[in-house]
Amino acid sequence: MDLTQDVISGNRLALSRLLTLIENQDERGLSALDELYPRTGTAHIVGITGPSGSGKSTLVNRLALDLVDRKEKKTAIIAVDPTSPFSGGALLGDRVRMRDLSERPEIFIRSMATRGALGGLARATGEAALAMDAAGYEVILVETVGAGQSEVEIARLAHTTVVIEAPGLGDDVQAAKAGILEIADILAVNKSDKPNASITANALKAMLEIGEELRKASGEEDMHWTVPVLQVSALNGEGITELSDEIARHRDWLKKSGAWESRSRDRSIDLVERLLKEKLFDEWRGRVDKEGFEQAIAKVNGRVLSPRQALEILLQRSSKN
Amino acid sequence: MDLTQDVISGNRLALSRLLTLIENQDERGLSALDELYPRTGTAHIVGITGPSGSGKSTLVNRLALDLVDRKEKKTAIIAVDPTSPFSGGALLGDRVRMRDLSERPEIFIRSMATRGALGGLARATGEAALAMDAAGYEVILVETVGAGQSEVEIARLAHTTVVIEAPGLGDDVQAAKAGILEIADILAVNKSDKPNASITANALKAMLEIGEELRKASGEEDMHWTVPVLQVSALNGEGITELSDEIARHRDWLKKSGAWESRSRDRSIDLVERLLKEKLFDEWRGRVDKEGFEQAIAKVNGRVLSPRQALEILLQRSSKN
Repeated sequence: MDLTQDVISGNRLALSRLLTLIENQDERGLSALDELYPRTGTAHIVGITGPSGSGKSTLVNRLALDLVDRKEKKTAIIAVDPTSPFSGGALLGDRVRMRDLSERPEIFIRSMATRGALGGLARATGEAALAMDAAGYEVILVETVGAGQSEVEIARLAHTTVVIEAPGLGDDVQAAKAGILEIADILAVNKSDKPNASITANALKAMLEIGEELRKASGEEDMHWTVPVLQVSALNGEGITELSDEIARHRDWLKKSGAWESRSRDRSIDLVERLLKEKLFDEWRGRVDKEGFEQAIAKVNGRVLSPRQALEILLQRSSKN
Repeated sequence: MDLTQDVISGNRLALSRLLTLIENQDERGLSALDELYPRTGTAHIVGITGPSGSGKSTLVNRLALDLVDRKEKKTAIIAVDPTSPFSGGALLGDRVRMRDLSERPEIFIRSMATRGALGGLARATGEAALAMDAAGYEVILVETVGAGQSEVEIARLAHTTVVIEAPGLGDDVQAAKAGILEIADILAVNKSDKPNASITANALKAMLEIGEELRKASGEEDMHWTVPVLQVSALNGEGITELSDEIARHRDWLKKSGAWESRSRDRSIDLVERLLKEKLFDEWRGRVDKEGFEQAIAKVNGRVLSPRQALEILLQRSSKN
């Protein structure tokens, strides 16, 4: 009946329950996470991102099976769905995925959908990863759709970021590709059977080389990771073992170069700062009179005060209380 | 030589300079924005979002030309690029776009690329829209790539959100479409010449109808906006006038239903809260001893304290100072 003990002992139902509590920011979940926190820090968190239509989900499923079968790693999947379809959409997605992998007790899948709240998705994902880490999952695959701000945030959460591309989807795809290169540790071009897959892979390699040149010109060197470009096929399984091996090689590189340590530290700072900002705002809300706040908003809305001017007035009011 | 006066009088160079100052969070830009703020609130802000490869940029260009030529509206474009390609990528994009529309003095284009900072992109975009509004632009088209958290945030900034889809890009596209429906006021299926365009349009209509059913079942009614699904072709210009007309019709609906007012108010609250959170954190940073903060982070990183426990200790320390 002790949630944290049940999670530690590998009870899947207990982990599911904990994740729901965390997603709802329920105090029981958050204090369970406090208790579990000393047991975290060993899992390898791998972000997998790319545009919709690139076949990510199938690839993630294949990768999870390789990690479990060939590498004998307990693996968890977090499928992040930033804009939830009406309601319960993530749950439906969960069920479809579950069906594929349901016979595998070494694999745990969870979908997350959070709407609205600024940074809410990144927070919930980070906390879910901590819970899975404490539950003994050795690799956590965090799958995200699209290439927006949330991906950049989730990349910050991961030790290793894999970017999936599909062969030439359209005209402004080239620009999007260049954009996402910044966060990639490994690039995988899916659908390697398609005729233009190698064209896409070569274009990506060329772009990465420009980046390398820029880096060398700026004098940055020592223990540098060169982003590999792989061709894979989620459909027929081609290239999956290579991808899995590259992920493991990146982990080794992180450990050897000291980047694992520095990324962990960045993540700790990020976690604490995020909590601080929320807490400070909540405290402030409790201190300021509601009427004063409403008045200030009305003045901003009526264009009498600019938002910055309203801020100054509100801070003065609250410092008096 | 007075930046705000020059912006008000329609000097494009002055507006460009102001936008750069704002993007860099330069005090001169921010106080100019304070001065300009009373002149804002009239522009119709239209978010245009959709996956890469959907032909958004071409569509936005066409739409801007229709707004200027047929509707005689001064139009500004903000092209948001969440993950910047190496550096200067947004600038390059700017130049390509500029070439297409450069002969049109009634159109103003600006690309924005912000990396990292949580909520930084939404903030910079919001402030840029205010500056353009004050400069007399009547319609502001905010173009975003992808379907991530940033799109949801930018949708919150817009009065009207247009979601662009391309005919069936791939296997998990269906789910992505369902996801983005929540933020759409108008749906446009681009590439109407492609054979599967009408299949996609019909699928979207069917999904929207489910949403309508859910809404009716929950008893929500009165002055409800029914999301139209249009077929357009950015390439040959088909459906652009219809899209432009639907955008104008949505503006009229917003005004009549009171939604314009309530969305404006939400935006004011959002602006002030965002500034407050940043300011409170900065103030707190100034109050806490740097050494204490470093120690707490080290303990979190060493798994001695959970982030929440570190937060409590830090807040206690700072309240003593």
